[in-house]
Order: sequence, then C-alpha cells, then structure tokens
Amino acid sequence: MRLPEGFTAGATASGIKPSGKPDLGLVHVEPEATWAYVATTNRAAAPCVLRGRRLYADGAGLRALVVNAGNANCATGEPGALDDRRLAELAAAHLGLEPQAVLTASTGVIGVPLPVDKIEAHMGRIELTDEADAFAAAILTTDTRVKLSARELPGGARVVGVAKGSGMIHPNMATMLAYLFTDAEVDPVALRARWPAVVDATFNQVTVDGDTSTNDMAVLFTSGQAGPVADGAFWEAVSAVARDLARQIARDGEGAEKLITVRVRGAASEAEARTAARAVAASALWKAAVHGNDPNWGRILVALGYSGARFEPERLEIRLQETVIYDGGAVAFNGVALSQAMQAEEVVVDVDFREGEGAAEAWGCDLTEGYVRINAEYTT
Amino acid sequence: MRLPEGFTAGATASGIKPSGKPDLGLVHVEPEATWAYVATTNRAAAPCVLRGRRLYADGAGLRALVVNAGNANCATGEPGALDDRRLAELAAAHLGLEPQAVLTASTGVIGVPLPVDKIEAHMGRIELTDEADAFAAAILTTDTRVKLSARELPGGARVVGVAKGSGMIHPNMATMLAYLFTDAEVDPVALRARWPAVVDATFNQVTVDGDTSTNDMAVLFTSGQAGPVADGAFWEAVSAVARDLARQIARDGEGAEKLITVRVRGAASEAEARTAARAVAASALWKAAVHGNDPNWGRILVALGYSGARFEPERLEIRLQETVIYDGGAVAFNGVALSQAMQAEEVVVDVDFREGEGAAEAWGCDLTEGYVRINAEYTT
Repeated sequence: MRLPEGFTAGATASGIKPSGKPDLGLVHVEPEATWAYVATTNRAAAPCVLRGRRLYADGAGLRALVVNAGNANCATGEPGALDDRRLAELAAAHLGLEPQAVLTASTGVIGVPLPVDKIEAHMGRIELTDEADAFAAAILTTDTRVKLSARELPGGARVVGVAKGSGMIHPNMATMLAYLFTDAEVDPVALRARWPAVVDATFNQVTVDGDTSTNDMAVLFTSGQAGPVADGAFWEAVSAVARDLARQIARDGEGAEKLITVRVRGAASEAEARTAARAVAASALWKAAVHGNDPNWGRILVALGYSGARFEPERLEIRLQETVIYDGGAVAFNGVALSQAMQAEEVVVDVDFREGEGAAEAWGCDLTEGYVRINAEYTT
Repeated sequence: MRLPEGFTAGATASGIKPSGKPDLGLVHVEPEATWAYVATTNRAAAPCVLRGRRLYADGAGLRALVVNAGNANCATGEPGALDDRRLAELAAAHLGLEPQAVLTASTGVIGVPLPVDKIEAHMGRIELTDEADAFAAAILTTDTRVKLSARELPGGARVVGVAKGSGMIHPNMATMLAYLFTDAEVDPVALRARWPAVVDATFNQVTVDGDTSTNDMAVLFTSGQAGPVADGAFWEAVSAVARDLARQIARDGEGAEKLITVRVRGAASEAEARTAARAVAASALWKAAVHGNDPNWGRILVALGYSGARFEPERLEIRLQETVIYDGGAVAFNGVALSQAMQAEEVVVDVDFREGEGAAEAWGCDLTEGYVRINAEYTT
C-alpha cells in the first residue's frame, strides 16, 4: 500500500525475532511531521513510551519512526532507557537526523535486554520506498495478518494506517501499535486536541483479553504535503481508518475464529455506551458463547448489568445478528436459526438502552480452546 | 456440619433442576435473627435481590431463608416479582411465619419463569434438622463440591458458613450465594456496619471470569442464643469463615484445576491493594500461564500496571511460590524448578509495592480448555 506524500518506509530482519523474520521497521517523513500521540496508561510503561511522552510534551516535530518487534524493552531498568535512546540514535544516524526527531517503539518479550548490537548491525540495510507493506510486516509479533487501511480525501490527500494487534501468542507480547500517516495539512493544535477522541472510539474499544500492555501507542503523523483539507472530511477519514484497523486487530486476537462487534445506542452518555459495549465484548462468558454459536442473551444482560451503564432491564432491547432476542424481557425467537446465523465471521450484538443519545461500538473476538492452548502451553 | 444454636435447615428436590437433585433449601431461625446484607451491584438485579434490599431497608428481623437453585428468576419481568413473593409466602406458610420474615434467593437460568407450582408442591416436604449439609447441597448449581466452613468462639458460640460458587457450567448460571449463621449475640448496628468490609475483603476478592451476577448476595444472620461474645474474636471468626468460603468458591471455578492466591502488601492504600490483587487474579494471560505452569512474571507486571494501583516498577517485588522472580527488575531464578513448584493445587503470588501499608488478598483459578469447552459447547 502506497504511503501518503512525504512518507517513505522500509524494514529489515535484525535477528531479534527467533524466526528470522523482519523485525525492524523505519518510517521517514519530510518535511518535519506534525503529530498526535496517545500511549498506554499502564504504570509499568516501557522506556519508548516514557521517551515518546517527553518528546510529545516538548512539542517538536518528528522526522522518523523506528519500531522493533520481538523485544518490548520493558522492565529492563536504566539500561533499557539507554537502549531505547540508542535505538533512536541508530535510526537518526542512518537517516541523517537528530535523535530527538525520531520516535521509538518496541514490542515483544518483557524483561529481556534489547539486543542493540543486532539493531546497530542491521539498521544500515533498511531501504526506504513509498510502500507501507514491509514496515507493516516488520512490526508484527504474533499477529497472523498484516494490518493496513487507507482512505482518500477529496483533492487527493490520503490517510494510510498500519497496526499490529494484541495477539499474545508468545508470553509477554500484548501490545497494540497503530500509526496513521497523512499528507493532509492540519492545524497542529487541532490535531493534538482531536486525536484522543478518535483513539477512544476506536483502538480503546478493542478488547482481546482485557490486558493493557506496557507498550501500546497510537500515533497520527501529518506531512502536510497535500495541502489543506476540509476538517470534516479529514476526521471522517482518520476515524474510518482507525476503526478499520481496530476491527482488524480484534479479528486477529489470539486463537480467535470470529470478530465480535457490539453496538450500543440509547445510552445516557457516550461514555456509558462505550463502557457497556466493551463489557459485552470483553465478557469471557459471552465470548465463549459466541464460539459455541449459542444465542445466550442472559450473558449479554449480565455484562450490561455490571458494566456500570445506567439502564432499566424493562426498557432494554438486544438484537443478535439483526434478530430481536430481548425486548424489555425475554422474547420468543428461533434458537436453531439464530445459532446458524452466528456461524459467521462476524457476530453483531445491538443494544438499545432507550435512555438517551449515547452510542458507541466495541470489538472483540471469541474465546477458543486455542487461546488457552496458546497461552498455557509455553514454558519460559 | 451442625448449625449454631437457634438455626435449623433442610432441603428437598422440587424438580427445578433437570437432574432431579435437591434444589430447594430452607433455613429457620429462632428467635428472630438480626442480619447484615450485601447484594449484587448488577443493574439487572433479580427480584429476590430487589426484595431483599427492601426488607433490609425496613430493618426488620428475619425468621427464615429460602433458596431455590436451577432458576434465577431474573429478567422475568413483573411476573418474576410476583413469583418471588410467592416463594416467600410458601416458605412462610410451611413454617407458620409472616412472608416479610422470609428472605428469598434464586440462582440458575436467566429469563425463564420460576416454576412456583413445583415449589408449592414440594415445600411441605422439607424437614428441618440442625445440620447444614442438605441445605448446602440444595443451593448448588454447577458447583462440583459443597462449600461449608465453621469456627468456634471462646465460650462456645459458633459461626457456620454455607456458600455456592461461580462455577458457570450451564449458561446464565453465574451466582455467588454466601450465608453465615451465628448464635453469638452482636449489636445489630455494628453487625450492619461491619459486614460490608468483611465481604469486600473476602467474597468480593474472588474472581472466576470477571462476570458479576444478577443474583449475588452475602448475608450474615445471628440468633443471639449463645449470648454476648468479644468483638474482636467474633469478627475474626466471621472473617475466617468468609475467607475460607471465598477460597472454596475460587478453587471450584468452572473448569478450574488450581486455586490462584494473590497477596499484595506495601500498597499506598488497602483499596489499591485489593484492586491490584484482583487484577492479577483475573488476568486471562496469567490464569493461562498458571494452567501451563509458566513462571511468567511479565504477565503479573502487566496486570499490576493496568490495575490502577500506584507503584514504581523499580521498587516492586514479586514472589511466586515463595521464590523471588522480580525485584525492581528481572532477577535470575531457576525456571524449571519454579515451573515444577507451580504444579500444585494452589499457586501463590506475593506482591510488595513498597509504597505504603495497604495489604489485601484475592483468589481466582487457572484458565483451562475445560472452561471454554464448558461455556461454548452448549446450545440454548
């Protein structure tokens, strides 16, 4: 997939991944990119997150992004912070930049020193092109698929997104990385102000197993090379790309065989709609029911009930694959037909609280024996 | 197990459980019991919970407790509320009491009308004895074991506890019921005031899959027949019985093969210690690691990190089965030996934040293929 104007990217295999697959990705941008940044709230945040926060607080533009996969460089103490700085320096040297113009990210095993020597030996081999694909493949850990998405704006500006998911097949890999690149020219203050709301409505509504990583980040970069764009169209395109990536991440959750989409409307507030949608998407009982094609609305009701969202069971409506299965109480439906309708790649739950105007979506995946096997049958 | 003075109990099979096992339990107390009550926060609370809250707000004493298992009488609308009242009336008629002196509880399938006719036909067969065992067996749903615990106080007063767990093998069964009976004479105001803290430190620290049922309740009844007791000894005994039942519930979680105990100390507050302990006990990744005997401290660190508890990874200590596995950073340990030590009925995680004085425990169980199978391989 072609990157927007001003962006080039590349990748190489540096030997961090035992598989020998590409594990070092680089993105270059010119001129300096305006950026907007949201990172994990986990208290054990990795050095790359701490460094990214400092760069973001400084307010300077960025010229590059470097990501290594296979090692999260987390819980690595003071040496880990130095290794993270070294990662930035190596990318900067390769591109002829200052290190503070380079954002770093790491994903993979926790608690193991980052093999900076390997990165140093291979950084020089990275060749940049205007395609995102090699970069998108290099940042994967246990994902089974590359995650890319793009939208074009009237006038030709583009938004291209790349992500890796929360498929945590190997231990300690639990990171969501999402990067959106655009050549639209956007006011930097607005960019910073509006990006968190997009992240909240998309990436933060993905749940695979409820574990929030130490290294998560979602970043939006603009080169501005395509000139100004209409505000509405721009944020619509950004949201669409973010949502598409969020869905790809959920669908590729560890051991997952199905995407679960939960749409809530009629909530007392948007925040309550989000919480309620996430509670259903995250419910182990509902995830297992989806795996077994069981139209078990009781589990949806229970999850809504403990989500914290305000509602009256007597006013609530629940639909599953477009069939009403609860309307102020139990309603008759054809369970066999609905179970068959659940044998699909995507299972959609629609909830209407009939309380207010709040609406939101959340995405998850079914809970399979594969998830347990993947996460249990490993010995460190 | 013998009940404290003043309490008698019994049970019968009324045909609510398809298995034909006992499913209707009754406890009688004389004189009138003082009681303390904590029930689910789930917004889709069942009629028995709504009724129990009203009785508790009225402040009157109780003379009986009736519990049916196999049908939760939840999401059953206005008829469900009438059926719940009928349950109280039938128990009251059998015992010669006023209905408002009878606390009701139901657990089982959601959304199916309570078969009150069956209850009516069988209530009269319940014979009361001073043993708790028949009652304890009748309130089980998908539990594999009866849960009983007792402590004796100096002077002979006793505390006897009965519980059913959150083993949710069949759909929509997701309820924790806990009843503690004592003949100690305790000030009613103190009883009400202190019971919630005991519940918070014990039953509310149990997590099987994160789902909070519509019918949960934990109730403490006193007959007062054994006379006054020392305050400290009384609450110590109550806490010990509650903690023991909580552990029994966690150990009998659906598909569980091991009990996970997480002990947190050195937290900035007790509330943070509780949250942190619960986050680790509830982490799907850690539960799967325990199942696989994998001493994977990264997953513990990640869960602590997103729990919301304040701590510095550089000060944190984590022990697993008494072995230090993290101390301000990764430390060397014998992974093979520790993996062997995890092949036990109980896996204990000790966390020291070294921040303050807050301490707490939480209990959970390992995540097994059995959990998924049990919850997926069913069609409503």
